[in-house]
Order: sequence, then C-alpha cells, then structure tokens
Amino acid sequence: MTNLNTVLHISDNERWSKALKNIENYLKDIGENNAIIEVVANSDAVKAYKAQDLIQEMKALHYRGITFIACRNALAANSIDTSSLPNFIKIVPGAITHLVLKQTEGYAYIKP
Amino acid sequence: MTNLNTVLHISDNERWSKALKNIENYLKDIGENNAIIEVVANSDAVKAYKAQDLIQEMKALHYRGITFIACRNALAANSIDTSSLPNFIKIVPGAITHLVLKQTEGYAYIKP
Amino acid sequence: MTNLNTVLHISDNERWSKALKNIENYLKDIGENNAIIEVVANSDAVKAYKAQDLIQEMKALHYRGITFIACRNALAANSIDTSSLPNFIKIVPGAITHLVLKQTEGYAYIKP
Repeated sequence: MTNLNTVLHISDNERWSKALKNIENYLKDIGENNAIIEVVANSDAVKAYKAQDLIQEMKALHYRGITFIACRNALAANSIDTSSLPNFIKIVPGAITHLVLKQTEGYAYIKP
Repeated sequence: MTNLNTVLHISDNERWSKALKNIENYLKDIGENNAIIEVVANSDAVKAYKAQDLIQEMKALHYRGITFIACRNALAANSIDTSSLPNFIKIVPGAITHLVLKQTEGYAYIKP
Repeated sequence: MTNLNTVLHISDNERWSKALKNIENYLKDIGENNAIIEVVANSDAVKAYKAQDLIQEMKALHYRGITFIACRNALAANSIDTSSLPNFIKIVPGAITHLVLKQTEGYAYIKP
C-alpha cells in the first residue's frame, strides 16, 4: 500500500487554522490510522500550543491519531516552559532535523 | 533521464504571480513537455481561478503543458461553483491528499 | 549513514532571520560537515545578499559549510548585478530547477 505518511510544517502562528483544516480534509480522504501524520511547529507557531483558541481542535485531532510536535529551540525562543504545555504535545530537540529525518523515511512534506 | 516532475503548492492567493513566474523560469530551463508540472491550489488560492487578472497567463501555461488544479474542499469553502471555472482547471477531491500522493510518485514539492 | 542533505527555499526577504535560525539549530543537532545544506533564494529574497544586515551571519555560516545560492532570474528581476554580490554567494540559472534537481538527488526540502 502507498505510504501516505506526512509531515506538516508550521512556522507561522497565523497558519494554524489553514493547517488544521488541511488535516481534517486529509483524514476525510484517507481515513483514520492509515498514515502517520505529524504537525511540526517551530518559530512563533509553537505559541498556539500555549494559547487556548485552537487547543481543543488539536486535541480532538490528536485522539484521531495526529501527532502534534513542538520544537524545543522555538519553545525556548518564545519563553514557553515545556511543563506548561498540554500533555499530548510531543517535543523534539529541533524541528528542522525532525522534518529532514522524516523526509528521509519517505514522509511527504507539506507547508500549509 | 532524471524525473523532473513537480508539484507547486499555492495556499495563498497573493502568491500566484510568484508561482507563475517560477513556472515560466522552470520551463525556460528544462523545456516544454520534459516533465509533468502541476500547480495545486487550496485555501483562498483557488480564488484566482475565478478572477480575471491571471487567468490568461494560466491558460497560456496550460497550453504549454502545465496542469492547474483546484481543491474541491477549498472551492466549497470559498463558495466557488465548479461549473463557473474555466474548462482547463482540473479538480481534485483534496489538495493535501493529491500533493502527498504525487510526492510518493517521486514528484518534487515546491512552495512558491 | 542517513543522508541529511537539505535545501532550504527562501522566497520572501523577511524570512531570512527565521531561515538562518533554522540552520543554526540544524547544525547544532547534526554537527558541521555531516550534510550538504544549501540555502536557495529566489524572488525578492535575493535582496538579502546585497543588503548589509545579515551578510556577516551568512558568511559565518558559509565558513561552517553552508552554501548560499541566488537565482539568476531573481537577481535580474530585482536589478542586482551579480558582480556586486559577496564572493561566497553561488549563482544558479534557476532556483526552481535547482530545488527540483536536489530533491531528485534525495535532499530534503524545507520552506522556513
């Protein structure tokens, strides 16, 4: 079966609603649990993990199998304490490194 | 021969002129009909297919072999009736799914 | 060993500081000279090669092994004479062509 694993890279905080809409539509097309889908936030896009407005929508997508990832460097640059984040957010040392590694594993790259 | 097939992803309506310029230059480099080149528009970028200002330039590129694609979800979200679009615009059920599938087929991904 | 070669595509001049920060963090993770890392600027992003504010930071990264590339089409469109650029800037005929070719060679694509 075709590998539909995908990383979505969000580096602008105002891109989140587009990205979440993209994921909803992608899941509608391929169904749940048929691919690994990771959202990787860096730069100021990590702020959305700390804000309240989209976190319920993210959490709902998390329960549908989507992985939400924050870049540790970006958290530090935005003075966000990792312990203040919702539990479902996964932290990686560096977003770019993670995005490159996933592409070497055959993940498609999408910039919403 | 190297596979130069490429998907260009446009998710911002104001990115179109950059994207069309990119394609012109890409065709200048590789020549016509040496690669499949698809432009995939989602979010508010589908509006350009309904507007008048760039459609002639798109049509000219279409005749040079470029495929212009609209995301059905994005058309619905922007209240654009598919029947109102120029005939050369192709419609896919979901832009992200299409962009992922093309990457699994070896297409390069470009975000203008 | 995993191929960590990467092209970073900058098509907006205001994205440079994010991009350079990305590279710093990427180098911190993978170490120097463990991957080919190229920054490919087109559209108005080539202006940064002519401006003074980031050029020292770029030069320092160049000495750490990063390749900085300008698109000849974009230089012409922005009336930048190639001879006016710092020596460490490499010029390619077309940015998109270069970005596609590198992806066919297994480079990961990142849009900062």
